[in-house]
Amino acid sequence: MKFTIQRDLLISSLQNVMKAISPRTVIPILTGIKVEASHNGITLTGSNSDISIESFIPAEEEEKVNVEHIEEGSIVLHAKYFPEIIRKLPEDIVSIEVDSSLKTVIRSGKAEFNLNGQDAEEYPLLPKIQTDDTFEMPVNVLKNMIKQTVFAVSTMETRPILTGVNMRLANNRLHFVATDSHRLASREVEIQDAAVQFENVVVPGKSLHELNKILSDTDELIQISVTNNQILFRTKNINFLSRLLDGNYPETDRLIPTHSKTKIKMKTKELLHTIDRASLLAKDEKNNVVRLSTEGNMIEISSNSPEIGKVVENISAISMEGEELKISFSSKYVMDALRAIEYDEITIDFTGAMRPFIIRPVEDDSILQLILPVRTF
Amino acid sequence: MKFTIQRDLLISSLQNVMKAISPRTVIPILTGIKVEASHNGITLTGSNSDISIESFIPAEEEEKVNVEHIEEGSIVLHAKYFPEIIRKLPEDIVSIEVDSSLKTVIRSGKAEFNLNGQDAEEYPLLPKIQTDDTFEMPVNVLKNMIKQTVFAVSTMETRPILTGVNMRLANNRLHFVATDSHRLASREVEIQDAAVQFENVVVPGKSLHELNKILSDTDELIQISVTNNQILFRTKNINFLSRLLDGNYPETDRLIPTHSKTKIKMKTKELLHTIDRASLLAKDEKNNVVRLSTEGNMIEISSNSPEIGKVVENISAISMEGEELKISFSSKYVMDALRAIEYDEITIDFTGAMRPFIIRPVEDDSILQLILPVRTF
Repeated sequence: MKFTIQRDLLISSLQNVMKAISPRTVIPILTGIKVEASHNGITLTGSNSDISIESFIPAEEEEKVNVEHIEEGSIVLHAKYFPEIIRKLPEDIVSIEVDSSLKTVIRSGKAEFNLNGQDAEEYPLLPKIQTDDTFEMPVNVLKNMIKQTVFAVSTMETRPILTGVNMRLANNRLHFVATDSHRLASREVEIQDAAVQFENVVVPGKSLHELNKILSDTDELIQISVTNNQILFRTKNINFLSRLLDGNYPETDRLIPTHSKTKIKMKTKELLHTIDRASLLAKDEKNNVVRLSTEGNMIEISSNSPEIGKVVENISAISMEGEELKISFSSKYVMDALRAIEYDEITIDFTGAMRPFIIRPVEDDSILQLILPVRTF
Repeated sequence: MKFTIQRDLLISSLQNVMKAISPRTVIPILTGIKVEASHNGITLTGSNSDISIESFIPAEEEEKVNVEHIEEGSIVLHAKYFPEIIRKLPEDIVSIEVDSSLKTVIRSGKAEFNLNGQDAEEYPLLPKIQTDDTFEMPVNVLKNMIKQTVFAVSTMETRPILTGVNMRLANNRLHFVATDSHRLASREVEIQDAAVQFENVVVPGKSLHELNKILSDTDELIQISVTNNQILFRTKNINFLSRLLDGNYPETDRLIPTHSKTKIKMKTKELLHTIDRASLLAKDEKNNVVRLSTEGNMIEISSNSPEIGKVVENISAISMEGEELKISFSSKYVMDALRAIEYDEITIDFTGAMRPFIIRPVEDDSILQLILPVRTF
């Protein structure tokens, strides 16, 4: 194997595949990055037991030459050293050459590294995904859906299925749901010409988190293919493969109240900042509980930690309908939900101090955030 | 106590005194920040067993009013909550008011915090420093001296005196020396009209590190006063007090070789980056040892870790005089030394492969970095 490449392209491609590398892997070869040279370009692969990422650097792109002097072949180089070496090389051009004994020479300017490689034959083959069951959507819409739901997955391994985001696709609507059983985040979006349907696809929250970091915020399309136990996200130069979680995702639709007794309309940021301040004194307490109580349009947000002190702040609602209410909740959960809603105004629907309440943007009912209150009053 | 203040001034003043607060202090009141209001302005104090910092906000400054509605008094507020509350308040103006039971009300906009305070009478009094033995120097020169020496202090408590920087002042020359017994960093500077002399003043490295973070890079003067067991650094609005280390600092002058057998002149950054690359493969090894060998003006920097690989890079010296040399050293120590030298070109004087060598800027002999080699050849 041999090639000469633009260093900055190699760096950004390495950054992508590094997201899949875990230093704690039990399979030694997965501490390495697979480098494959073909006449079309260079493919890097990183993998752990949950995620595999392939990043491709085309030899030529829009009449620009990225890779030259290619001799086909492949090698596995240690992820602890290879990216760091490339990052610190002195010149913009790097040449990489592997001899028959897996010794890899990396040259740039006057610097010459000899790195011991591993045989690429020993690197596990990524499963081939049938691409018949594919649908596509803009990358930025997918990123938004991830951001608006993934924070609500459970971090406890007691119910592993809740550590993932449930994806459903039916009647041209794609639906993401995440819940840790104290709160639930849900987002729907319309998919055009989706020839597929599925219901019980659960993607690990960590996979979606890493995927979101790799994808740039463009309106280009991303292809998504689902099988029994894998999901593949494919953009022009990246293949992101994740395992799916085993088991049945709980039925969540029936958790969502269909009527409300108190309806408050508020400015998102104003409520967020007020709750943030009120939570400052509740730092040590489990869940950072704060209280909300209504007096007509005046909404009082407060918190009290006898040892430390107390805080009270009144803000005006845009509108308030229904019964007066006193309710306590985890400030963290409500702040997570408010941050996920990228609209200026929200509606909160309460059905009593002990029942879950719902936060939605005023102008968009495709986003829903549900939160269980805390019993204190 | 009562006052109304510009929030941004309070925030930056709090950031200064927070540098002295240690959450692990054994004296409970030192988990707090002392707030004192007088008609001149507001003084904040933070302290741990090593450092005390006073930061003053004048009530008026250059015809601008910073603090209003002052009623004199003082209170101690918890460092875990008070700065965070101020930082997150909704408006640019904050009012703070303490009642007779130490309850402190903090108001800004519609937000109202009630924080339980502690009695300022219980806060330890800072020692008064005699200001007769004072000398002064520009802040940016002091910052430079700290940066060029403090990294070389020992982090081991086996010889506590070496965890400090030795300050000497004689014949109008101020001298900083730090050593961990593997390397030594030294910087001298001329002080005008210094009426004082001292020799065995040793300031904890941590204190100087925090001081450097607080001081802004100006050419204003800073006053320095030394007593038997304390040192005070005083700028217009900050008093920074540190304890001194007990014990005699070792005699270091005789460690410095007075002649050299090999003299190399090089570009600082080129050598730094080459050593940085060579150290990449020596990551796991103790001290990250790299080798330097000369062949006339060509300097070869190399490193070899049989399991991982090897690296070689040749760079040209500007000049080379004396015997050919092969020497091994800790890449970390040499990189620390090279980073501390803010000049483009350096001279390295070697007196043999097993003897300490000296790095100096070509154009400035007030800076000296000495490093002990590692035995490998």
